[in-house]
Amino acid sequence: MARVIELNKSITDSNDRDAQQLREELRRRGLFLINLMSSPGSGKTTLLSRTITDLKDDVGIAVLEADIESDVDAAHIESLGAVALQVHTDGMCHMDAGMTRRGLEGMDLTDIQLAFLENVGNLICPAEYDTGAHANVMLLSVPEGDDKPLKYPLMFSMVDALVITKTDTLEYFDFSIEKCAERVRRLNPGVQIFPVSAETGEGMDAWENWLKSHLE
Amino acid sequence: MARVIELNKSITDSNDRDAQQLREELRRRGLFLINLMSSPGSGKTTLLSRTITDLKDDVGIAVLEADIESDVDAAHIESLGAVALQVHTDGMCHMDAGMTRRGLEGMDLTDIQLAFLENVGNLICPAEYDTGAHANVMLLSVPEGDDKPLKYPLMFSMVDALVITKTDTLEYFDFSIEKCAERVRRLNPGVQIFPVSAETGEGMDAWENWLKSHLE
Repeated sequence: MARVIELNKSITDSNDRDAQQLREELRRRGLFLINLMSSPGSGKTTLLSRTITDLKDDVGIAVLEADIESDVDAAHIESLGAVALQVHTDGMCHMDAGMTRRGLEGMDLTDIQLAFLENVGNLICPAEYDTGAHANVMLLSVPEGDDKPLKYPLMFSMVDALVITKTDTLEYFDFSIEKCAERVRRLNPGVQIFPVSAETGEGMDAWENWLKSHLE
Repeated sequence: MARVIELNKSITDSNDRDAQQLREELRRRGLFLINLMSSPGSGKTTLLSRTITDLKDDVGIAVLEADIESDVDAAHIESLGAVALQVHTDGMCHMDAGMTRRGLEGMDLTDIQLAFLENVGNLICPAEYDTGAHANVMLLSVPEGDDKPLKYPLMFSMVDALVITKTDTLEYFDFSIEKCAERVRRLNPGVQIFPVSAETGEGMDAWENWLKSHLE
């Protein structure tokens, strides 16, 4: 059974300053933090599971699972050999920098180089709060549709990378990777885009090489 | 091109009271309002499109499309012969009763018996605000996974009906309708559950009969 920490909203007047401090502290410790955002059910946990399995022999990985309730994800992630902690957000629809800090402090991060914050499943609120991560990554799954950049522009415009997940289901859905990429690049010209299937492994190499390129 | 109204947060000390008032006013006018909630990409617009096509000869239907940005949905809904209006929520992750009222006031509702509020795509915030609707309906699509009731219990526990969408994709995903229904009923014993495919039409009858049962 994974441990669970209950978090409340941080009482601070400057989330941006807290986020900047956290980011610098983590960098000094040699820890690269990725804030992973998406809708519910877009495949964050499945992508992380495959990533951990592929990289764990070379990279120490930790996962902070933020959720309104439940601890199903953290228990699963731990079973794969990563350090994991579940945090509950007390009903809040996003994580802030103080919550992220308290979550990270609850884990043993000795020998960890790469940490993922699995943010609350939601395309709106998490886009508005800097968590202190070094990179913001968003997942969009093929079944959600290639029109989502039109509807949630803030999220798509603020991420460093977009992972298009569940590409093994492309033949069953009306989803054009090209059209989606074009819509995202119009909002965010510098974004990295990785189409992947964590089921078949297709595209995982490019995603994992991008991750490794950030580690010291 | 569909019209768009920009809405801001309602300045009122009691959303619950506003919601109750709106609900009573609409009832007196013979208008049944359904608050439709789900993640982005779960198929709200596709379900509505099929429902409008099936029912429009017998029932006057209006759709209030709430979104952060874009007007793609309202334009499409209008083309099917329903009254539609797009409202933008100024970045807010949910609709409240005052916003719903202002949206409805922007439409010609003569001859309308059934109105849908397509709430912002999000399983968290919309669950916390009474919009003044007579029924709350949630969509969960097969690709999102049958574990979602464990992760977003508030939403699942407050709805009158759950529509499980995209059932034509059941063979490609590890989703058990039975397991999902059991998890939802544990939170919400009285909930109606409608598995449907708006693509093939399977299950649409039961959903549409439930809708009609609410009309005068």
